[in-house]
Amino acid sequence: MAVIVQKYGGTSVGALDRIANVARRVAARKDQGNDMVVVVSAMAGETDRLINMAKEITPIPNEREMDVLVSTGEQVTIALLAITLQSMGYKAKSYCAWQLPLATDAAFGAARVTDIDTQKISEDLSNGAIVIIAGFQGVDENGDITTLGRGGSDTSAVAVAAGLKADLCEIFTDVDGVYSTDPNIVPEAKKISSIAYEEMLEMASLGAKVLYIRAVEFAMRHKVPLIVRSSFNDNEGTLVTEESSDMEKESVRAVTCSSKEAKITFSGIPDVPGTASQLFLALAESNVVVDMIIQNSSEEGKTDISFTVPSADLEKGLEICQGVREILGAEKLTGSKDMAKVSIIGLGMRSHTGVASRMFAALAREGINIEMISTSEIKISCVIKKKYAELAVRVLHDVFELEKPL
Amino acid sequence: MAVIVQKYGGTSVGALDRIANVARRVAARKDQGNDMVVVVSAMAGETDRLINMAKEITPIPNEREMDVLVSTGEQVTIALLAITLQSMGYKAKSYCAWQLPLATDAAFGAARVTDIDTQKISEDLSNGAIVIIAGFQGVDENGDITTLGRGGSDTSAVAVAAGLKADLCEIFTDVDGVYSTDPNIVPEAKKISSIAYEEMLEMASLGAKVLYIRAVEFAMRHKVPLIVRSSFNDNEGTLVTEESSDMEKESVRAVTCSSKEAKITFSGIPDVPGTASQLFLALAESNVVVDMIIQNSSEEGKTDISFTVPSADLEKGLEICQGVREILGAEKLTGSKDMAKVSIIGLGMRSHTGVASRMFAALAREGINIEMISTSEIKISCVIKKKYAELAVRVLHDVFELEKPL
Repeated sequence: MAVIVQKYGGTSVGALDRIANVARRVAARKDQGNDMVVVVSAMAGETDRLINMAKEITPIPNEREMDVLVSTGEQVTIALLAITLQSMGYKAKSYCAWQLPLATDAAFGAARVTDIDTQKISEDLSNGAIVIIAGFQGVDENGDITTLGRGGSDTSAVAVAAGLKADLCEIFTDVDGVYSTDPNIVPEAKKISSIAYEEMLEMASLGAKVLYIRAVEFAMRHKVPLIVRSSFNDNEGTLVTEESSDMEKESVRAVTCSSKEAKITFSGIPDVPGTASQLFLALAESNVVVDMIIQNSSEEGKTDISFTVPSADLEKGLEICQGVREILGAEKLTGSKDMAKVSIIGLGMRSHTGVASRMFAALAREGINIEMISTSEIKISCVIKKKYAELAVRVLHDVFELEKPL
Repeated sequence: MAVIVQKYGGTSVGALDRIANVARRVAARKDQGNDMVVVVSAMAGETDRLINMAKEITPIPNEREMDVLVSTGEQVTIALLAITLQSMGYKAKSYCAWQLPLATDAAFGAARVTDIDTQKISEDLSNGAIVIIAGFQGVDENGDITTLGRGGSDTSAVAVAAGLKADLCEIFTDVDGVYSTDPNIVPEAKKISSIAYEEMLEMASLGAKVLYIRAVEFAMRHKVPLIVRSSFNDNEGTLVTEESSDMEKESVRAVTCSSKEAKITFSGIPDVPGTASQLFLALAESNVVVDMIIQNSSEEGKTDISFTVPSADLEKGLEICQGVREILGAEKLTGSKDMAKVSIIGLGMRSHTGVASRMFAALAREGINIEMISTSEIKISCVIKKKYAELAVRVLHDVFELEKPL
């Protein structure tokens, strides 16, 4: 008998008939003799409804109170799902995060899970009950309600699975699994049957929205086997797990693209130690998230610094840069919106040579200029003009033969 | 500096502009130098919306899960009120019942308050914060969420006031206070400026909806001074407090009327000990609430028993009675719907004589037949035909001169 944790997102529980659909799925796995734990999000639209009420009062509502407010969304879903399962004749019991407790730090709105007590869950499971847990929420050491940020229910599910040492954690969403790239851009994109935590982590960082970074990190750290699959069909999903030798056979496994990037460049900065730190401290203090940073080699004592920020933060970023420009003694400050970052990812890069040059050559053949490059052991990212983003994705997907069955 | 607990019901917090109105009222009292604690209900309509979702799933949803579901209503209100007060520049902090905790027994849907820990409230008050507490909800010793039943927010407010030894507990509602009778029936009905707990308790039991019985009982037991007043104007309300000699000057202080009564009569029952207990045990087991019971004097070894039940329960009650009729050996069983109970209430009855006979004479003059009578030290109730209910109320209000200023 396996212990299975399932997580259903907002779309999957967005109405009473969808909750009934979830209940039938859970019941079917229970009938097969599994111990079932279900983590659910708020019904689709509910979190936004609550946030909008608060924003009508004030543009920047207090974060502690926002977590009190939005955590009600998941609480409604757990009760409705428990009632549905009970009406089908199953034992079911719901828990808010504070009732377990699922403990977090006190970073309201983006709290990190610090600990989980699974005693109540285990007791209920051994009594034959299906246990239903409110995702997205936690409780800090003051007894205040916290929330885990976007994608928080994924993290809740992984934390519960880790705490229970569950055999499997299934993340149900509105897509079939993890694809070699966005099927909206490349119709031949292929579902990946299994992917390593490290690869998934890179993909999540690079714009693939199917799983959130923190959930993948948590799963990797606690070796929780994850499956990503659709709640609307019975297709096999994608297994996210520890790396295996199979995974290294292909040099590249996926292409991702994030098209909401902007680039800021300082030219002609006197090359003095401490320059970069002053700049990025100022940006960090204003909560502008800097992604890729390139410092060109110094020439006659002068240097250039380029970096990317989310395009929504370009104005704010430029304003801050303008403020530090004189201190840095920079000759020129420029910003360009409408940038994109295309990346290729694969554990196989470690053993296959020439991957980077194949990528650069493929882009060059299409006349796509690469503005910035960043690499890690298992990924290569290029910043290009946004208008070339889809072309670049198609070309890279083709060059690395990702449409072939793995 | 006084400690004041205020309670605002669902209508008073039914929309964001009404919550803003509540915030201004609270802030005004805070500005006067008072320590403010605010207990709020769910926004009007929200509890019904949640209940209806559950009832769409199944007619009799599990009570534990119902409390998980409906308690979200108050949680939304506390956050919105805290955010509103903060946007006005006040320190404010919200608490769910479990965060204090406000402890109850485990009777889901109708739990009783067993204890309240006011430490967090006191700390926040001494830090200058306005403390906002979710009414209607509690937590049992298993850590399960409970709710206190209809009018539960009144009880929450009184419990908080008792725990804090507050100087005053103000119950804000959509009426101006407690009236000598229903102003819809008698336009001359007068607001009572102060009333004893015992009188208020009788009024609440006898159909006056302005305050719920459990809240009054709790206030009486802990000597919490209550004020009932409107959240829509600044009129003085009604003080509910310990009895004073003033209150005994008038023989009768209020007339109440409950018009959803039904009467069941068994005739010709052999007068054997244990008869009544069998009957009322069967009714209690089926959750039919029996109010007034009259057993006529025995005649030739036979007796009659009449009792009242809520008119909605008449059918069910008659069915149960039919079941025990043979066991009792009763000759006849009759049920009459459309009954009403009119009552007069006043501490003064203890010292004024002839109150009952004045009541009976007044009803007789109008040709109103009294079908059952029940009395306590401070109230007299008569069951009459429902069609005479309003006439009876007007006559009694007039006879006991309740329109006169107290």
